[in-house]
Amino acid sequence: MSSVEEFDAIIIGAGSGGLTVAVSLTNLGKSVCLVEAKDVGGDCTNVGCIPSKSLLHHSKEADASQALSKVRTARDTLRDEETEHFANLDNLTLEFGKARVMGKGLVEITNANAVQAVKAKHIVIATGSKPRRTSIPGLPSHKYLTNEELFEMTEAPSKLAIVGGGAIGVEMATAFSQLGTQVVLIEAANHIMPNLLPEAAAVVTESLKEQGVEIATGVAAKEYDEEAAKLKLGPLDGQITESVDAVDKVLVAVGRVANTKHLGLDAAGVKIDAQDRIVIDRKGRTSAKRIWAVGDATTRGGTTHLANAWGRKVAKGIFPLPLPSGPMPVDVNVAYSEPEVATIGHQPELVANDVRRITYDYTETDRAYTDEVRHGIIIVDIRKFSGKILGATIVGPRAGELISTFSLAMRAGLKIQKWYDTVWPYPTYSTALGKVVDLYMIAHIRNVHKDFFSWVKGRLKLN
Amino acid sequence: MSSVEEFDAIIIGAGSGGLTVAVSLTNLGKSVCLVEAKDVGGDCTNVGCIPSKSLLHHSKEADASQALSKVRTARDTLRDEETEHFANLDNLTLEFGKARVMGKGLVEITNANAVQAVKAKHIVIATGSKPRRTSIPGLPSHKYLTNEELFEMTEAPSKLAIVGGGAIGVEMATAFSQLGTQVVLIEAANHIMPNLLPEAAAVVTESLKEQGVEIATGVAAKEYDEEAAKLKLGPLDGQITESVDAVDKVLVAVGRVANTKHLGLDAAGVKIDAQDRIVIDRKGRTSAKRIWAVGDATTRGGTTHLANAWGRKVAKGIFPLPLPSGPMPVDVNVAYSEPEVATIGHQPELVANDVRRITYDYTETDRAYTDEVRHGIIIVDIRKFSGKILGATIVGPRAGELISTFSLAMRAGLKIQKWYDTVWPYPTYSTALGKVVDLYMIAHIRNVHKDFFSWVKGRLKLN
Repeated sequence: MSSVEEFDAIIIGAGSGGLTVAVSLTNLGKSVCLVEAKDVGGDCTNVGCIPSKSLLHHSKEADASQALSKVRTARDTLRDEETEHFANLDNLTLEFGKARVMGKGLVEITNANAVQAVKAKHIVIATGSKPRRTSIPGLPSHKYLTNEELFEMTEAPSKLAIVGGGAIGVEMATAFSQLGTQVVLIEAANHIMPNLLPEAAAVVTESLKEQGVEIATGVAAKEYDEEAAKLKLGPLDGQITESVDAVDKVLVAVGRVANTKHLGLDAAGVKIDAQDRIVIDRKGRTSAKRIWAVGDATTRGGTTHLANAWGRKVAKGIFPLPLPSGPMPVDVNVAYSEPEVATIGHQPELVANDVRRITYDYTETDRAYTDEVRHGIIIVDIRKFSGKILGATIVGPRAGELISTFSLAMRAGLKIQKWYDTVWPYPTYSTALGKVVDLYMIAHIRNVHKDFFSWVKGRLKLN
Repeated sequence: MSSVEEFDAIIIGAGSGGLTVAVSLTNLGKSVCLVEAKDVGGDCTNVGCIPSKSLLHHSKEADASQALSKVRTARDTLRDEETEHFANLDNLTLEFGKARVMGKGLVEITNANAVQAVKAKHIVIATGSKPRRTSIPGLPSHKYLTNEELFEMTEAPSKLAIVGGGAIGVEMATAFSQLGTQVVLIEAANHIMPNLLPEAAAVVTESLKEQGVEIATGVAAKEYDEEAAKLKLGPLDGQITESVDAVDKVLVAVGRVANTKHLGLDAAGVKIDAQDRIVIDRKGRTSAKRIWAVGDATTRGGTTHLANAWGRKVAKGIFPLPLPSGPMPVDVNVAYSEPEVATIGHQPELVANDVRRITYDYTETDRAYTDEVRHGIIIVDIRKFSGKILGATIVGPRAGELISTFSLAMRAGLKIQKWYDTVWPYPTYSTALGKVVDLYMIAHIRNVHKDFFSWVKGRLKLN
């Protein structure tokens, strides 16, 4: 095997996570072999963030098929640019094909032309995920869409049923209803965006309904009657209870499955969990020596920005940089629906005793008034006394930018007292953050007094 | 004078600054007499932020006169709500009339019905400012507009000349060109937004031109020929060099003048500067005992949010609250034009040796790509080694929210190193902030090494 080419690292998967590691390592002069089974840019560029945000942008246009065509052009242009960029990057060898981890740093790459082996001290698995496909009996494959087929449509359906009321479902409900499609959003839980606090989900529900989106909760798609074009619904573990007429396409968006099969992970000693996700530690290491993993193939993935964050971490782990290793990436999520929905950290439905939950009606800001915004809410959880920010939910215009402010503050450990007396430029939407801080501080000061007097009383009794 | 009503504080002016002080003091149970010469809400509610932002919002609509009518409705509704709110506020007496400071805590209020005197331990002057009116010979008064007359128009002019290319000029150029008005923007300096860095102003210029706004720089309005409807232009201290045809309205937006006349300030011992602005210290105190001032009647005013910030400070100064006195309010400004323009801190045209200026093309973010944004820039000044943020300029979508993040960070003293490895949710516009941080950190790390070796060499020579 003297002809086996050797690299500093082999990265399997050229999506957000893999590309971040690749850029970081090649910048340091390390040689990288980047293996991609399909398209450079991964899901984000090809069937995720880019086409979905582009569609949300173009959905305001009158001609739906032209809008869909523009989305494909935008996506293809970016993918081609990225592919060319990485094909010509110094220190990087881009190989197309299916990869298999063979042990001892060897990776086998199979494509239509050949089977070859490459070798490196470090292997990074960044193979991402694919849509979970539920079975809907009776639904023909040309009417069954996931995010992988959605953006290939050349015309907007007249009626689209979206199965799954998470971020993808809500974004696409927004986009297609703007394009003139009649949209029915179906969610098995008792409210859409089941990971959202119920009061925030209620705001999203109200807004979507105003946009003409029909919403069915507590039910799943049970079967499809093609002759009648009826999609039949019922509780997850129950009988059919209702049906939706004239459905010509069904978009299934009920979660993701990690791409961890056929990679030889088991033989290589890489542990996966019950949901087939690669288990990684705080540095991005798998259970196998010198095999790393990032992104949504792992237990710590889920979004492009998390894949980026872990990609940076793994690059630093492989070849230590003169940089702080950095904090644990915080979980932050944004749906670019109408209204925008953004969350950070963890917000349980029941508030713990030592947590102060501040809820503010985002439509009360003066900018929401001039912009005629009718749907919005901010819910922030802050530890009592210490002022540590634990989590936040923002529904409304520009929520993604406001949650970014929380992301910075949480990364930097900036307690809420340090936010007090910030000059929030008027009339930005960010003035809402000032209101949240004031509400917290008022409650905080009131309790400080109460606690202070209780403390004094206690002392007097003791003396 | 036993019939003179006494209060804890008299506040002159019911605009942003005065209302902030009023709310803070009444919340503490203090009795306040609030004197307003015209409308509750001041310039912001009546002829400033609210109608201008409302117009920017409604300018996307097809019918210009309907849009203008909606703006007035929005403004009047808010003003009426605010008036009613303050008229019924506990601990507050709202008086309409002209106020005059008489000394010894006495203030005389004159209106159509009566002259009365009120008395208080503390007086707060929050009389705001009015537009500076330049003379344009030949221009009849019904064609001469400032922000005070602008929103009374029932129809959009067919051609509007805007004299003054600052924030108001640029916002109204955006709004009226969207309404279908032909707009000519005239700025005496060599670029519009003269307080902006030239490279940022160039981005705004390019975008406005694409929207069809004509821009004339280095010239001022010299005279108007009513017969020919020609506005003649020339350098500030020069002859007429060019002219604009068919101008049916002229909006003059060339700065503000503090409302400090006829208040009896001189007799009361309240010092004003050469521009008639009340001089205040770091606590908001004037040169006269127990007379305070806030907002754009002062040397530290200029915007609604600064008036708010100083209002909070003054309230704490008058009746100390159990709250930190807070940092000095940072100067932050946002123009809600297309594109949005936001600045914070101080950014001189020439960068000092110990400052690292990071410039990033905002259109390079992936969200700008999907949203087809073609104009944007971010320029951030950061102290070398220490990482202290000194100032920032952002031109592009949602700039006002991104500058708010800087406002928080600067208020909290958050150095740029603490921004590193923040998870910026993808694809928000805030991802641009991550790019800025990375660019700084790369340069920082490179120089840390260089400086380290220089330091070692110096040591070796000394020993």
